[in-house]
Amino acid sequence: MSIECAPMNGAESLVRTLLESGVDTCFANPGTSEMHFVAALDRVPGMRCVLGLFEGVVTGAADGYARIAGKPAATLLHCGPGLANGLANLHNARRANSPVLNIIGDHATHHRQYDTPLTADVEGWARPVSVWTHTVTEAGAVGCAAAAALQAACTAPGGVASLILPSDVSWDAGGRVAAPLPAIPPPRVCPDAVLKVARTLRSGRSCLLLLGGSALAEDALADAHRIAAATGAQLLCCVQNARIPRGRGRFDIERMPYFGDAARARLAGIAEIILVGAPPPANFFAYPGKPSRPYADDTAVQVLARPEQDLADALRCLAEELAAPPLAPPQASADIRPGSGPLSSAAVAQSLCALLPEHAIVVDEAATFGHAFYPGTRQAAAHDWLQNTGGAIGHGLPMAVGAAVAAPGRRVIALQADGSGMYTPQALWTLARERLDVTVVIFANRKYAILQHELASVGATAGATAMSMLDLGNPDLDWVQLATGMGVEAAKTDSMEGFNTLFAMANQRPGPFLIELVV
Amino acid sequence: MSIECAPMNGAESLVRTLLESGVDTCFANPGTSEMHFVAALDRVPGMRCVLGLFEGVVTGAADGYARIAGKPAATLLHCGPGLANGLANLHNARRANSPVLNIIGDHATHHRQYDTPLTADVEGWARPVSVWTHTVTEAGAVGCAAAAALQAACTAPGGVASLILPSDVSWDAGGRVAAPLPAIPPPRVCPDAVLKVARTLRSGRSCLLLLGGSALAEDALADAHRIAAATGAQLLCCVQNARIPRGRGRFDIERMPYFGDAARARLAGIAEIILVGAPPPANFFAYPGKPSRPYADDTAVQVLARPEQDLADALRCLAEELAAPPLAPPQASADIRPGSGPLSSAAVAQSLCALLPEHAIVVDEAATFGHAFYPGTRQAAAHDWLQNTGGAIGHGLPMAVGAAVAAPGRRVIALQADGSGMYTPQALWTLARERLDVTVVIFANRKYAILQHELASVGATAGATAMSMLDLGNPDLDWVQLATGMGVEAAKTDSMEGFNTLFAMANQRPGPFLIELVV
Repeated sequence: MSIECAPMNGAESLVRTLLESGVDTCFANPGTSEMHFVAALDRVPGMRCVLGLFEGVVTGAADGYARIAGKPAATLLHCGPGLANGLANLHNARRANSPVLNIIGDHATHHRQYDTPLTADVEGWARPVSVWTHTVTEAGAVGCAAAAALQAACTAPGGVASLILPSDVSWDAGGRVAAPLPAIPPPRVCPDAVLKVARTLRSGRSCLLLLGGSALAEDALADAHRIAAATGAQLLCCVQNARIPRGRGRFDIERMPYFGDAARARLAGIAEIILVGAPPPANFFAYPGKPSRPYADDTAVQVLARPEQDLADALRCLAEELAAPPLAPPQASADIRPGSGPLSSAAVAQSLCALLPEHAIVVDEAATFGHAFYPGTRQAAAHDWLQNTGGAIGHGLPMAVGAAVAAPGRRVIALQADGSGMYTPQALWTLARERLDVTVVIFANRKYAILQHELASVGATAGATAMSMLDLGNPDLDWVQLATGMGVEAAKTDSMEGFNTLFAMANQRPGPFLIELVV
Repeated sequence: MSIECAPMNGAESLVRTLLESGVDTCFANPGTSEMHFVAALDRVPGMRCVLGLFEGVVTGAADGYARIAGKPAATLLHCGPGLANGLANLHNARRANSPVLNIIGDHATHHRQYDTPLTADVEGWARPVSVWTHTVTEAGAVGCAAAAALQAACTAPGGVASLILPSDVSWDAGGRVAAPLPAIPPPRVCPDAVLKVARTLRSGRSCLLLLGGSALAEDALADAHRIAAATGAQLLCCVQNARIPRGRGRFDIERMPYFGDAARARLAGIAEIILVGAPPPANFFAYPGKPSRPYADDTAVQVLARPEQDLADALRCLAEELAAPPLAPPQASADIRPGSGPLSSAAVAQSLCALLPEHAIVVDEAATFGHAFYPGTRQAAAHDWLQNTGGAIGHGLPMAVGAAVAAPGRRVIALQADGSGMYTPQALWTLARERLDVTVVIFANRKYAILQHELASVGATAGATAMSMLDLGNPDLDWVQLATGMGVEAAKTDSMEGFNTLFAMANQRPGPFLIELVV
């Protein structure tokens, strides 16, 4: 179905179709083949376009936007290499099931045959991160393809839809605006599955509900707590999660430990693992002589609901089947004081707990130094916690861009390890240009601390050459200069007192501020 | 064939095989799955390991290294997302036919089935940029696979060989060092092809020899000039070239113009295009209503030699067939004075021509502002000129790292546009850490000038939104702060006098220096 409009080119039909479908934000790093799309932005008002100076910023921002807005933004990337630069954060978006409309401009359809320098396998690179990949070959088909892409991106559990747009398809006349296609609703869990899980929970065996994806939404989590309270089942969520609403006045959820040994200890004695939108637990990496699964061989794993199903409905049905009484969230504790004394993960966590602004969005790529942050902020003001879901580092700063664009009026707190931050520092410039309300805290330990740990974990020993590969000093990075060089005000500190002062001040100011905390 | 050694793991057999094959440089951004390789570096002396803080630095450096050293370096990348971050510069390396041993660590063979967060389609992403792609599945096969990969990378015209190394294959015992496998020599051009081209050149028709790849090596180019002088044929090289030895005392070669209209004007009247290691000319991008080929329909295109053949031999045979007399390179002109007066591309070119250190390596990613640099530096001291061959921007700074590692004692001059430079600024840190003799000149026009040009070329009109997508101001980047934040000394100027002083000074100093030239 298409809506009749005045004659227009393919690019304009794309912009109009996006706006019809409620997509009004585009994170872009365009090139020559996208110039008609860029030009169409002025002819068709209503699209907010945010420039990233590197494609990893663009795709990470689209992920962060989707997690907070609950709907896709468009990206705009230039040819195969532009897509390639954005793949790592698309990988993270894929693991988060974030809806993203990933638009890649490419050579004109008649030009590809000449294999000119930028020609690359765009579809081949896009497909592994996408739920939907398609190259449009005529202007009249752009609108319908965009609508289909958005439907695919938004259908549960959500994903990346990659729309490849040859330049002639953009500039040719004959564009037609397509009407929105509704997302396919998530299927409900069948009653038998609910009954089977209810029987397991009533069996007296030691049970664990492992929650992922939309099972962590506030109402769904409340039902999970009802179930736990009524049956004695334990609750955990995955190691990495797209978004966890939490803080004072909300139910809390413990995360599966990252390291395999800790995960195995946590799961010891569990007889039944019940999956609710989560995959069966597996360690992040393999280690010599250790199993990849962190649970015992005789632990049973069953599925209440798969990620693409209606997880909130499944938990509600299960709670009702169990006749689990409603539960009020735990009371907030008395006032919390910021951390003090020696700098430590726990002390910073305490400061975050005390000082986090109401309805903040926390983007957590703090890595090793951040180990106490999540457990230590249960009692903070109500907030959302966003994690790196795919392990491709360089996700935090771009995601902070996207989250801030999605939620004007909410403060975004980017908790960022220095090593990971250096993968996409260009995001700082976009924070400055868009005057986004983001407080960046760089935890500068000046090493790949996680790798120093891992080097020991895999049983390897290290000499000078090895250690130099895991060391970010020599020279030390100066994040205050990096930030101010990209237009973001910044300050450095190495004490809890300094951190508390800067953090409180930064959160009061409009626009971005970066704190380099030397740890 | 394998050489017997003491018991060792797969990682150690890899390092030892590389050293046996003469590969003694590794550009690395390792993660957990590469810890055994990293540990092996200390047990086996002889490998220089250079850390990049982002994978695009690693792969671009390997490309620059290969172009200058004439042999491959190894990369070390972490899983699919680490490879993804390096793909854009591998795309450039592929287009340069640079030999690169691209090592990607991955999950243990028994761990992949669990589809943990970092699991990705490593082979699928690697294949489009690689001449050889293989996942090793047991420790005993690592050495042989590495030798085969190196053979593939070094066989003419050269390319990227992607060796995927699951972590258990690294840590398992049973590693065996493999003996080097020789590169397959490039096939000679058959005498008939030489005779046919000779006939064309003697026909009296207007002929052009289009040279690419190793046809630009000093001796090959001298033979091309003999042929041109004897027959009246014209000479051109491709728009983008991996390496051109040039400057005083060497033969010069004009480049095909970048823009289609200029290329078409340049080729007007040419009846015969003879390809020597070059593809048939095609415009970089398509434009509405314009053909992709820049030559007339009745221009004949024939091939003297394909890129994988022995191009120097082909030109030598052709010169001999034509009985073309030897030719001395043109005499150097009298002394050249640095540019002065208003800042312009031509004035900077004149300064480069006057001040370029002897045997410098020029890495050219200067884009629009640099249009006069190549033609204006014909008379500079002897140097090598390296270009971005694949159009994936963010190549210049990483390539400068690799070129400098390959050629201690030679000054590397990185001519870098600001927009492109922001794709891989992390390379500056590696310059500082390794104390590389590199002078970086950032041409800060604070916009994507090429795109403002292209927007007009494709016939699109732009309003405020479009122009904001092509503008790097608001806020201005401060490259002096960015550089010093990564440990590189830097200064800013906006005059020719300032540039001349800083450039001469920088080239005298050991280690890196960055000049921000505001244009």
